This record gives sequence, structure tokens and C-alpha cells, in this order.
Amino acid sequence: MAEIYLDNAATTIPLPQVIDKMVNVLQNTYGNPSSLHKKGLEAERIIKESSEFFAKQLGCTKEEIIYTSGGTESNNLAILGVASAYARTGKKIITTTIEHASVKMAFKFLEQQGYEVHYLPVNKEGYIDISELENLIDEQTILVSIMFVNNEIGTINDIYKIGNIIKQKNPKTVFHVDAIQSFGKIPFSVRQLKIDLLSISGHKFYAPKGVGVLYKNKTVKLHSLVHGGGQQNAIRSGTENVAGIAAMHEAAKAVFANLSQDIEHYNELKTYFANKVLTEIEGTRLNGPALESSAPHIVNIAFSGVKAEVLLHALEAYGIYVSSGSACSSHKADKQYILGALGYENEDTDNAIRFSFGKQNTIAELDEAIEVLKKQIVMLRRLK
Amino acid sequence: MAEIYLDNAATTIPLPQVIDKMVNVLQNTYGNPSSLHKKGLEAERIIKESSEFFAKQLGCTKEEIIYTSGGTESNNLAILGVASAYARTGKKIITTTIEHASVKMAFKFLEQQGYEVHYLPVNKEGYIDISELENLIDEQTILVSIMFVNNEIGTINDIYKIGNIIKQKNPKTVFHVDAIQSFGKIPFSVRQLKIDLLSISGHKFYAPKGVGVLYKNKTVKLHSLVHGGGQQNAIRSGTENVAGIAAMHEAAKAVFANLSQDIEHYNELKTYFANKVLTEIEGTRLNGPALESSAPHIVNIAFSGVKAEVLLHALEAYGIYVSSGSACSSHKADKQYILGALGYENEDTDNAIRFSFGKQNTIAELDEAIEVLKKQIVMLRRLK
Repeated sequence: MAEIYLDNAATTIPLPQVIDKMVNVLQNTYGNPSSLHKKGLEAERIIKESSEFFAKQLGCTKEEIIYTSGGTESNNLAILGVASAYARTGKKIITTTIEHASVKMAFKFLEQQGYEVHYLPVNKEGYIDISELENLIDEQTILVSIMFVNNEIGTINDIYKIGNIIKQKNPKTVFHVDAIQSFGKIPFSVRQLKIDLLSISGHKFYAPKGVGVLYKNKTVKLHSLVHGGGQQNAIRSGTENVAGIAAMHEAAKAVFANLSQDIEHYNELKTYFANKVLTEIEGTRLNGPALESSAPHIVNIAFSGVKAEVLLHALEAYGIYVSSGSACSSHKADKQYILGALGYENEDTDNAIRFSFGKQNTIAELDEAIEVLKKQIVMLRRLK
Repeated sequence: MAEIYLDNAATTIPLPQVIDKMVNVLQNTYGNPSSLHKKGLEAERIIKESSEFFAKQLGCTKEEIIYTSGGTESNNLAILGVASAYARTGKKIITTTIEHASVKMAFKFLEQQGYEVHYLPVNKEGYIDISELENLIDEQTILVSIMFVNNEIGTINDIYKIGNIIKQKNPKTVFHVDAIQSFGKIPFSVRQLKIDLLSISGHKFYAPKGVGVLYKNKTVKLHSLVHGGGQQNAIRSGTENVAGIAAMHEAAKAVFANLSQDIEHYNELKTYFANKVLTEIEGTRLNGPALESSAPHIVNIAFSGVKAEVLLHALEAYGIYVSSGSACSSHKADKQYILGALGYENEDTDNAIRFSFGKQNTIAELDEAIEVLKKQIVMLRRLK
């Protein structure tokens, strides 16, 4: 049975050239980048070349690129690191109610530590009221953390406007953006958007799991989460994941070589799929923003009268892989908290399926998936 | 020019089957382990199988295996996690003066936070006085952290004796062991040695960089360093490095399939090399314990009148790779702090080279290295 993988927002299928690069580095550039001899320097060069590439794509300098073990660590290092480093300036922090668990739980932890965390509500499309943000920012506000693209419903925040408003109200407030779902899907520059800290996860753009990036503006102070050999300017000690970094660099090269075509491809898949499902299957509803304004690769659709988890497993039997709630939250009871925060009732959030698209998906696959979906929906509704 | 890699304590050359396994997982088991569908379950199974293997080797249960991004994170999670979780019981912590930077710097951080850290001195062979440890442990002692094998000079601590004394004095004191240089080099069981927390790093035993293990006894409380989706029982959130874990599992299988032969091989290489160098090259001195009692894969030799870094680069020109001080500390000014702590004077520590051996090394390589070494030492001493 052919697989139709429509869960690319959970993780992507590594590209062949990414795997090749990884093998090459593991075989030939196996040195410890901290070693003083040639094998160490070769490994260090791999990291430096990657940093130059990411810096160019993000619009920053290579010294502002920090490698982590992934998006969760990047988000935590940014948020906990700033909260600790600026605690004497203030303890007021602003975020939204629909951030990823790795942001949300970092803030819950900071609340326990005595920080004053404000959670901006969102409307049914996932947008915050920017004037509310503006009113909240004051002299004590050390950090604002707002995601670029929501991982469940694909809302794209107006980071340019948000960045400008933050810096107008308090130029010292640090602006962190979780860009895990936007990197490689939306072109942007951190300087232009006035972003101070930005999180990226390799496995969301065809690199392996276990490696990510934190962009840190050189003017921002950050306390480390781990201490040790002083690698990466002592911000993130530990032997670097050289092969993972090289693979992530290779993946980013593939993504940026065809970025506009990729975006067009994602948008075509999303629009085609969503329009067909929403018009050809009764009792369906689009969750989140209109298709024209949402992220190119994510669409969230509710199927009334069908429990998401049941539908997920029904599709799985046909080799079709989708998501009910973020994979990253599937361990938690309140896994649909994002849809809940949008104002949907429990019953509505129980029916929601996220379909997310990748480079490898085709329209032919979607046709096949839609056919299966149509039949399964009819059957599952009958069984109810 | 053929490479003679004698820096296996800094990092090892991944085994072919380890790379093959990684490729296989990246190609076929690309799902997010938190995804509810089959691709997620397949990825989860990879992790579970690995945990079962490590649990069996360490003598614990699979639920006690936590995956991290490597040794530095394992050490930090253990030390900072315990310090935070037991702060109300006491703030007294005991370690030694010759721990790895990832332990040492974690304790420096805790000192700044108001913890009372005691650094046990060591003798010229790197051994602590166990009665001194015994005298220090009291009701307020929440943590003792002592490395199994020293990374610079190969001292093997009597962890069995140390574990027993700790638990006799205060059964509630948590015992952490940095086993990064002993895993796959010395057989042991965590239960037998009364170890509560144990750190392992994949790339020290032929796995890729960027993945490690923390064994955590189920009775030990630990506060997390990163917060998020609740993976790994919420102790270490973040999408698991599935391919890295699979690769590390494969490496561990290779190591434990031939453990006694491996140890014999390392010991043979070490003894042959050290004896030849110490007897055939004048003005050499063994740093650390006697060859019969040191770790099988590490030997540290001082060459009088020759600066270590100069010798390192002279050997590099012949494709021979060695270390002057731990790679993990090469970023820091006090990189020879371990030899300093042994009581050597500055001049003595400047001449020390660590040679460390791996599966792939041969006696023929060592003969070649010794020939080069002899000539270089003569030449460099003349240049002085």
C-alpha cells in the first residue's frame, strides 16, 4: 500500500540529498569540532558554513546562529534564557493563548517562578488584537513571544506590525518568534521584522530530528540552560551535532533553492484539497483563517459527527497519515487546547483534523486521499 | 596520507552499521513518535527497542532511560535537575576537582545560586580520598557527582565502594555518575553500584554526535531543563532524535557484542603504545594512574621540553591525531585544569598529550605513530 503522508507539520520526510550529506559527514568529517587538529577544524568548518547559510537566509550574522537539539530547546533557551537574564529589569512577559506547547509550558514554568505572564486571547481565526498587545507593553515588559505560523490552523501573524509596535512602545523589550512552522514556508528577514530571537526546527523542513537553530540578536543577553565546555560562545555547551547540522544546512539549501515554487506547490495542494473536501463532503468546516491568508502548508478541517481520532485511524488503514491535534501535544490531556482557545466548543474541537503538506506530496495523492475520505466519512457517520 | 586517529576519547569514528541504521530510519521510519498514526508508532517502537537494550546493559528498566542531546545535557539535567528538585532538603553537594567541564560548570552555576559545593581533591593519579567523601556526607547532602573514568588521564574511580559509602552515610543522597568515558569500556550495572543517575554520550562509542542517555532511577525526582509537549514522561520534552537514538542503539549493540574483546584490544593498544613511548623516548612521563589500573583506552604522557600544542600540530602534519587537554575544554583558558588539579606544575601540564584508542586502531598504526613521534620529539627539542 502506497503511503500518503499528510502530516508534514508534525515532521517531514528527509530529502535524499540530506541523508547523503549526513552519511558523508559521519564517514569523513567525524572529528570533534573542539579538537585542535585537522579533524576538529574540518568539523568546525561544516558548522561555520552552515551558520553562514542560515545567517544569509535570516538576514543576520553567522555569530548570531546557535545550534540546539530542536525547536523545543530553541524555544526554551530563548524564553527561559531571557527571563533569567533580564529578571532585574522586570518580570512582565507577553505571549498568546495558542502558542506551541514548548512555549506555553516554558511560560507556565516561569509563572511558578513568579513571573507575570500575560496570555493574549485570539479570535476564531487565531489572530490576536494587536492594540491589546500595544496596551500591555510597558517599562517592565522584558519579553514578547509570538509564533509566526500557528501549527494547528496555519494562522500567519503580522510579525512586521507586531515587531514595530513592540519596539515603538519599548525598544528594550526582547521579541521572540517561534518560526518553526514558517521557516521555509514564508520568506522573511529577522532585521526587517525586528525579531531578536527566532526558533527553527530542522525536521520541519526535511532535515533529521534532533537539530534546530536559535537566532539570537547579538545585543540580547541570554542565560544558558546547560553549562560546560563553552561551545557556541558558551551559550550552548556540548559537542555540536555536526552531521545533523550539515544535514539541516543541506535541507535549507534545498528549500531556499526553490522557495517560491515550494510555496506555490504547498498553496496549490492546500487550496485544491480544502476546496474539494469543503464542497464535496457535507458537514465540514474550515477551522482557522481563510485559505487565501493561511500558511501554505496547513489546513484544519472539522468533520461533524466524526471523532477526529476515529477518522485518523480509519485513514491510517489506507496508508493516509494525518493529525488530530499537534503531535507535540498528543501526550497531554488538553491536546486540543489551541482550538479551545479559538473559542470552539469541546464537541467542535473533537472533530478537527489537520492536513499538512510537503514537497513530496502530489495532487494525484490528494485525489486518492479525498476518495478515501469521502467513503470513510459516510461510513463513520452511519456507525455513529 | 593515511590517518591515524588516536583521539577516540574526544569522539569516535561511527561504525558502518551505525550509519546504515541511521539511513534506514531516516528513509523509512520518518514519523514523529508523538503522532498517533502508524508512522508515529513505528518511530516510537524504535525508541522503545533502544530503551530495552540500554536498560538491559545498565541493569535498570526501560522507563529509566531518558534520551538527551548528549553528555553535556545529560550531566546538566542530572545535576541541575536534582539540585532544584531537592533544594528544600538541603543545598550541600559534593563532587571532585577533576570532573569534565559539563559537570564542573554546572556546579559553578549552582554555587552562584547559593548551593554549597564541595570539591574533593585528588592525588597525582586522580584518586579521591574516599574517607574524605565519607566525612563530608551529612543530612543536608542532596547530591554526590563523581565521574567513572577521567577523560584526561583515565583514572577509574571505585564507584562500587563510593556508591556504598554514600548510601550508608545517607540513603537519601542522590548519586550521579558521569559514565561518558566508561560506557562500553568497563562492564557495570547501575543497581550493583548504587547509582541513581548516570550520563552517557553516543559519540564516545561509535554513534553520531547529538545524542546521549541519562539513566534516572525511578525513585529520583528531577526538575526538567526544557518544557513542552511532555515527551519522555515530561522529563525531557521535544521530538526525540529517532534516527540518532536508533544509531546509538546500533553502536551499543556492536560494543556489547564484543565487549571483552574490545577491552582487551584497547588495553593491548594502550599498553603497547605507552610502554614503547615511555621506554624508547627519553624525557617522557606517564601522567595519572599506572597502566595496569587505568581505563583501557586512555593514556596521558608528558614529553619534557616540548609544548603539547606544538607536538599536536607536528603529528597532525603526518595525519596523526591526538589531544592536548580535553576537546571539550579547548575553548577555555584553563584547559589543563585537570592536570593542574592533580598537583602538576604549569610547565608539566603544558607537555601532556592524551592518546586515546578505539576499535578501529591497530598495532601497525601505533608502530607508525611511534616512529613519527620519536623523530618529531628529537626535532622539536632541537628547535627549542
